[in-house]
Amino acid sequence: MPNATNSPYSTDPKTTPVTVLGLGAMGQALAGALLKSGHPTTIWNRSAGKGDDLVARGATRAASAAAAVRAGEVVLVCVVDYDASQAILEPLAADLSGRVLVNVTSDSPERARAAAEWAAAHEIAYLDGAVMIPTVMVGTPEALLFYSGDEAAYRKHEELLKSLGGQSAYVGADHGLAAVYDLSMLDFFWTSMAGLVHGYALAAKDGVPASSIAPFLQSHFSLLAMLIGETAKDVDRGVYPGEEGNLAMELEGVEHILHAAERRGLDVSVLRGVRDVAKRAVDLGHGADSWTATVEGIRKPGA
Amino acid sequence: MPNATNSPYSTDPKTTPVTVLGLGAMGQALAGALLKSGHPTTIWNRSAGKGDDLVARGATRAASAAAAVRAGEVVLVCVVDYDASQAILEPLAADLSGRVLVNVTSDSPERARAAAEWAAAHEIAYLDGAVMIPTVMVGTPEALLFYSGDEAAYRKHEELLKSLGGQSAYVGADHGLAAVYDLSMLDFFWTSMAGLVHGYALAAKDGVPASSIAPFLQSHFSLLAMLIGETAKDVDRGVYPGEEGNLAMELEGVEHILHAAERRGLDVSVLRGVRDVAKRAVDLGHGADSWTATVEGIRKPGA
Ligand SMILES: NC(=O)c1ccc[n+]([C@@H]2O[C@H](COP(=O)([O-])OP(=O)(O)OC[C@H]3O[C@@H](n4cnc5c(N)ncnc54)[C@H](OP(=O)(O)O)[C@@H]3O)[C@@H](O)[C@H]2O)c1
Ligand SMILES: NC(=O)c1ccc[n+]([C@@H]2O[C@H](COP(=O)([O-])OP(=O)(O)OC[C@H]3O[C@@H](n4cnc5c(N)ncnc54)[C@H](OP(=O)(O)O)[C@@H]3O)[C@@H](O)[C@H]2O)c1
Repeated sequence: MPNATNSPYSTDPKTTPVTVLGLGAMGQALAGALLKSGHPTTIWNRSAGKGDDLVARGATRAASAAAAVRAGEVVLVCVVDYDASQAILEPLAADLSGRVLVNVTSDSPERARAAAEWAAAHEIAYLDGAVMIPTVMVGTPEALLFYSGDEAAYRKHEELLKSLGGQSAYVGADHGLAAVYDLSMLDFFWTSMAGLVHGYALAAKDGVPASSIAPFLQSHFSLLAMLIGETAKDVDRGVYPGEEGNLAMELEGVEHILHAAERRGLDVSVLRGVRDVAKRAVDLGHGADSWTATVEGIRKPGA
Repeated sequence: MPNATNSPYSTDPKTTPVTVLGLGAMGQALAGALLKSGHPTTIWNRSAGKGDDLVARGATRAASAAAAVRAGEVVLVCVVDYDASQAILEPLAADLSGRVLVNVTSDSPERARAAAEWAAAHEIAYLDGAVMIPTVMVGTPEALLFYSGDEAAYRKHEELLKSLGGQSAYVGADHGLAAVYDLSMLDFFWTSMAGLVHGYALAAKDGVPASSIAPFLQSHFSLLAMLIGETAKDVDRGVYPGEEGNLAMELEGVEHILHAAERRGLDVSVLRGVRDVAKRAVDLGHGADSWTATVEGIRKPGA
C-alpha cells in the first residue's frame, strides 16, 4: 500500500507534483502537456541536453533520477522499452515506494505484468499505460491512452492522466491489459497501413497515382468502419455467417490481387500471408462462412 | 463503332432494354436493380433454376444466351471470372456487334484489356466494370462501381449504370483501369480485414473480447482515414517525411506485436510480411522516414 510520509501529497489535483523520466520525443510531449495543465513538473533524462525548452516553460530539471522521483507524487516513465525502464527504476525502488508509478513505455503484456510484480514487492502503486497517438496529439481531447493495473491510483489521478489525452481509458486490473489493447489495435493499424501502401504501389504500376485512389478509399471507408463492430461480434460468438459474400469467393479475390502484384514485380509477402490464413480457414471447412472465419486459420498456424 | 440496325435502341434512357448474362448472387442483384429502375430486362444463366423471382418481378427469361443478347441494347455480364465470361461471349460476337457490352466480372487488368481487344475486333462497344460492394448494396446511392473503356458508351448509358450504384465512376479509357482501381482498393481492404481479425485474435488470447476493442478502433479510426490522403501524397511525390514517428521505431512496434502473437501460438505470416517490408525499407536507408517509405521495400521484393 502506498504511504504518504515521504510524498509531497496535494489536495488540488491540478497541483499534483509529477515527475517525467525519459525525455525522448514522447516523454517531452507528455511533460509539455502536464506543464500546460498546471502541474509542477520535474524532468530527468539519462543523457544530458534534452528538455531545455521544458525548463524554459517551467519544468524543474532534477540532478538525478532519484531526486526526480522524490519530487513527484506521480512518476511517469516513458523510454524506449522495459529493459530501459527497469534499468532506471530498479535502483529507485525505495524512493518509489508510496508513490504512484505510471509506466507508459510500450512493450509486451508479459513485461508489464513482470514490472507490476516488482512494483508490488516494493509497495509502489503501479499503473501500466500505452500511448496510442503520435506526439503532436498528446494533450488533446481526442488523444487516446490506455491504463491498466491499480484502479484506486487511476481514479485518484484520473484528471491528471486525462490531461495527457482526453480519451484516456482504464481497461482493467490486470497490468498487462493496456499493452494487450495497444498490441491488438496496432496489429490492425500497421497491417492496414501495409495494405494501404501496397495498394498504392499496385495502382502506380499501371500509371494510376495514389491520389486518384485515395478519395474512393476515403468515402468507401464507412464500410470498413461498420465491419469493425460486426466482425467483433462474430469473433466473440465464434459464428461467421457468410450470407453477404463467402470466404471461398473472397479467397479467389485475394488470389487475383496477389497474382497481379506478383506479375508487376512487387513484394507479396503480406498478401501471401493473407491468402494463406484464408486458405487454411477454407481448408478447415469455412469456405461458406464470412471473412471473419479466417480467425480459425489464424488460431491454427501453418508449418 | 456500334451500329443500330439490329438493336432495339430507345430514346428514353429509363427504357433502354438491358440484358444480364450470369445470375449468380451478383448478377441477380444487378438485374433486380435494373428492373427496379424500370428497364426492360432480359436474363440468362448457364444452368437453369436461377432467376425465378426476377421473372416474377417482370424480367424476361431468354431461351439462349444469343437470344438474350439480341434483346438488349446494353449487355451486362457478371460471372465468376473471365474464363467464364469469354466462354459465354466468344460464340456471340456477331450478336454483340453494335451493342454495348459491360463486363462487371472481377478479374485482372490484363484480362480486361484482352477482352477489350477481342471486343474491338468485333465492333462491340466495350466497358469493363468492377463492383466494389456486396450484393445487398447494389442499386443504392452509396454503391460504388468502377467503369473504364469506351467513354462514349459510358456517357450514353451513365444513368442506367448509376442505377446499379449511385457512386459509379468512369476512371479512364484504358479498359484495365476499373480492375486496377478494384485490385488496389481490395488490396488495402482485405489486408486491413486480415489485420482486424488478427488483432481480435490476439486480444482474445489474454481474455479481452473483440467487442471491448471495437469501440476504440472505431473512434480512433479517423486517424487512419486521414492517413489515406496523406500517405497518397507522399507515395506520389516519393518523399516520406518522418517527423511524427519514424520507420525504425515503428518497426520495433511491429516486432513487439509479432513476438506477442508468436508467443500466443497465433499464425504470424501476415505480420512477418509487414515486418519484412518495413525492415527492407529501413535497410535501404529509410529508418528516419515515415511508414510510407515501406513502398520502397515493396518495390524491391526479397528473395
Ligand atoms: N513517439 C511516438 O510517436 C510514440 C507514440 C506512441 C508510443 N510511443 C512509445 O513511447 C516510448 C518512448 O518513445 P519516444 O518516441 O520518446 O522514443 P525516443 O525519442 O527514441 O526516446 C527514447 C528514450 O528512451 C531513453 N532510453 C533508451 N535506452 C535507455 C536506457 N537503457 N536507460 C535509460 N534511458 C534509455 C532515451 O534516453 P537517451 O536520451 O539517454 O538516449 C530517450 O529518453 C516508446 O516505448 C514508444 O514506443 C511513442
Ligand atoms: N457477390 C458479391 O458480393 C460480389 C461483390 C463484388 C464483386 N463480385 C464479383 O461478381 C462476379 C460474380 O459473383 P457472384 O457472387 O455472382 O458469383 P456466384 O454467385 O458464384 O455466381 C457465379 C456465376 O458464374 C457463372 N459461371 C461460372 N462458370 C461459368 C462458365 N464456365 N460459363 C458460364 N457461366 C459460368 C455461374 O453460372 P451457373 O449458375 O451455371 O454455375 C453463375 O452465374 C465475380 O467476378 C465476383 O468477384 C461479387
